Amino acid sequence: MTTVQQAEKFVLAQTQDYGTETVPFELALGRVLAVDLKADRDLPPFNRATMDGIAINHQAVEEGMNNFHIKATQAAGDEPISIEDKGLCIEIMTGAALHASVDTVIPYECLEIRNGQATITVDTVKKGQNVHLKGRDKQEGDVVAAAGQKVTPAIISLAASVGAAHLQAKKLPRVMIISSGDELVDVADTPTPYQIRRSNNYTVKAVLTKHAIHADILHIPDDPAITRKQLAHSIQNYDVILLSGGVSMGKFDYVPKALDELQVEKLFHKVSQRPGKPFWFGRHQSGVLVFAFPGNPVATFMCLHRYFLLWLNATLGLLPTPPVYAALARDFNFTPPLQYFLQVTLNFNQNAQLIATPVEGNGSGDFANLADTDAFIELPLEHSEFKTGEIFRVWKF
Amino acid sequence: MTTVQQAEKFVLAQTQDYGTETVPFELALGRVLAVDLKADRDLPPFNRATMDGIAINHQAVEEGMNNFHIKATQAAGDEPISIEDKGLCIEIMTGAALHASVDTVIPYECLEIRNGQATITVDTVKKGQNVHLKGRDKQEGDVVAAAGQKVTPAIISLAASVGAAHLQAKKLPRVMIISSGDELVDVADTPTPYQIRRSNNYTVKAVLTKHAIHADILHIPDDPAITRKQLAHSIQNYDVILLSGGVSMGKFDYVPKALDELQVEKLFHKVSQRPGKPFWFGRHQSGVLVFAFPGNPVATFMCLHRYFLLWLNATLGLLPTPPVYAALARDFNFTPPLQYFLQVTLNFNQNAQLIATPVEGNGSGDFANLADTDAFIELPLEHSEFKTGEIFRVWKF
Repeated sequence: MTTVQQAEKFVLAQTQDYGTETVPFELALGRVLAVDLKADRDLPPFNRATMDGIAINHQAVEEGMNNFHIKATQAAGDEPISIEDKGLCIEIMTGAALHASVDTVIPYECLEIRNGQATITVDTVKKGQNVHLKGRDKQEGDVVAAAGQKVTPAIISLAASVGAAHLQAKKLPRVMIISSGDELVDVADTPTPYQIRRSNNYTVKAVLTKHAIHADILHIPDDPAITRKQLAHSIQNYDVILLSGGVSMGKFDYVPKALDELQVEKLFHKVSQRPGKPFWFGRHQSGVLVFAFPGNPVATFMCLHRYFLLWLNATLGLLPTPPVYAALARDFNFTPPLQYFLQVTLNFNQNAQLIATPVEGNGSGDFANLADTDAFIELPLEHSEFKTGEIFRVWKF
Repeated sequence: MTTVQQAEKFVLAQTQDYGTETVPFELALGRVLAVDLKADRDLPPFNRATMDGIAINHQAVEEGMNNFHIKATQAAGDEPISIEDKGLCIEIMTGAALHASVDTVIPYECLEIRNGQATITVDTVKKGQNVHLKGRDKQEGDVVAAAGQKVTPAIISLAASVGAAHLQAKKLPRVMIISSGDELVDVADTPTPYQIRRSNNYTVKAVLTKHAIHADILHIPDDPAITRKQLAHSIQNYDVILLSGGVSMGKFDYVPKALDELQVEKLFHKVSQRPGKPFWFGRHQSGVLVFAFPGNPVATFMCLHRYFLLWLNATLGLLPTPPVYAALARDFNFTPPLQYFLQVTLNFNQNAQLIATPVEGNGSGDFANLADTDAFIELPLEHSEFKTGEIFRVWKF
């Protein structure tokens, strides 16, 4: 059977490039930058007062002066005002640009102002104090956010600052989410005692929403002709198909046969993991990828995070983010020869160590715990006893 | 001066309750549940086959039988089919409901099927194997997600399963984001050499978007009449006003005066912190709250995360989430008598300990680093030397 590591390799070998597109910067949250975002001028673009007070030439202080005649008041945004001699000062506001003739700002708190004269009331005035020097943060042409970074509120701030009203972002795949099975009824419908409501499509869609993808959803009944027709349509119109259900060995699982008929090449089927053992992955010659997750909600949820999002991040060229590790809060045994993805809650102890507390489900169909847990901890296939304090990788959801 | 702890207390004392509203479950991502979400029936609602294969009565195995006549095939969603004697079995599909006369499922992998007879090819068959028992995850009426939980994809899944097509969510505050200052031009405009582009409004809006709030934004010029008029309008039409800029001691800072005239009571002004020392917080008699952040982007960003989001979570009744702690990666000194919020990158070491690496900015106006950092680490006011390995609270952004 395919191991988790092999499955990961197969999936990452199918990384695609869907190109780039222009996105208004305010709508780019969560998108991945396709090109470096550069400073259009120095940041700050001028020697900038960081306090309200007076601007002086520090040499005056060095020469023992502590009393200055206020020549003028300069607001932020005003053209800088010069002083012609060291006995003068400019009353200056936060954000204003200093003229080359002044280099130091003394805040109101350290001044007494009377009759147009400002007197320093403190002992020490450091040269250059309360001045944010031109180009100190970034110089014109410097990269302020790199290609491959995910657009955060901070990057939106930088985009605004450097005048990038539009950003070049990596194009997202067009995703169709499909569930199948006659036992599944819609949320608003009343199931018979032997049916359940379908939930996987909505879960998958919600996870994708968090990753800036607006996917379509579809439910297919257990009918071979409809299954084939709908899958063919999706292959024509989407880049990725995320299926849930219909991939086990059941007599009414028409999905694998339809995919085969539609020439979707199986890259693997079944992974030595729990949940998610029946996970099927394939590729159409057109490049369309099919992630066929098992029908049970926890399996779909795990595979989506462990495989699809990994593939998505690679496809979008997202810069690698450091993996998350946690220490087991208690001993845990798992004997089947499968890599186990155990649901855990996460919290930090007083030593800043991330602690994973297992919340045991009742088999892979138990998704009720997902609402109260934070992550899957990945317990290696090679072991069956896992001890308190042992460190493993976790996949937050 | 107000300490960070006092400021936090003042802010949390103004927690509001904006009531609840009904939200379609697919659109509820990120909202806070106002009432418990309960199971409308047992989960699972019947004894559910978790593998494809045959369903038998385990007593048959106990009595030494290993060969069964297939009475019928039952798909998921079908009415359960009984067996009248132990020599019979039902060919059953994953997700199907077991009849009371069968209790154990043997998967195809452990069977040989020929001429309507299924023969077990393995030595051990455990009673109840591959059956997910009715009510094992949750019983009818059990809480599947509690009031105060933030709606995650997992909760959307549960909502779908229990037929909650609409959820009761806490109402969000109506938020107006306002910047001020004539030195600020719009993103698409070309600034003079002494102006900069405004960015704070967009940053704040993006952070709020991540918290499901769609806020309005507005820029006010440095004009006392317009400032007053616009603030009055916002007080009438919003629950919270988030200001940035215009709250220092500058001559053109018309905001404090306008707020005073509009009878917004100042609850504190200036906090012993860096960045964000000039932070102003007040309340109108109508209950409208005004968070007036300093104009520099890092200060606004920090105060938004440290105070506003804290207030928002309390206001929405969000269940407390465990705080995040990290260990300093290197020594750091900060002598001013202020609580310092240092920008850091975060990563886990091999011991699953969260490590915070300081990225020193160039004063509080330096927001260029925000794109490359992950959090603020909060360094207590009482100390000025912070050593490698010491643990402090971090505020992720």
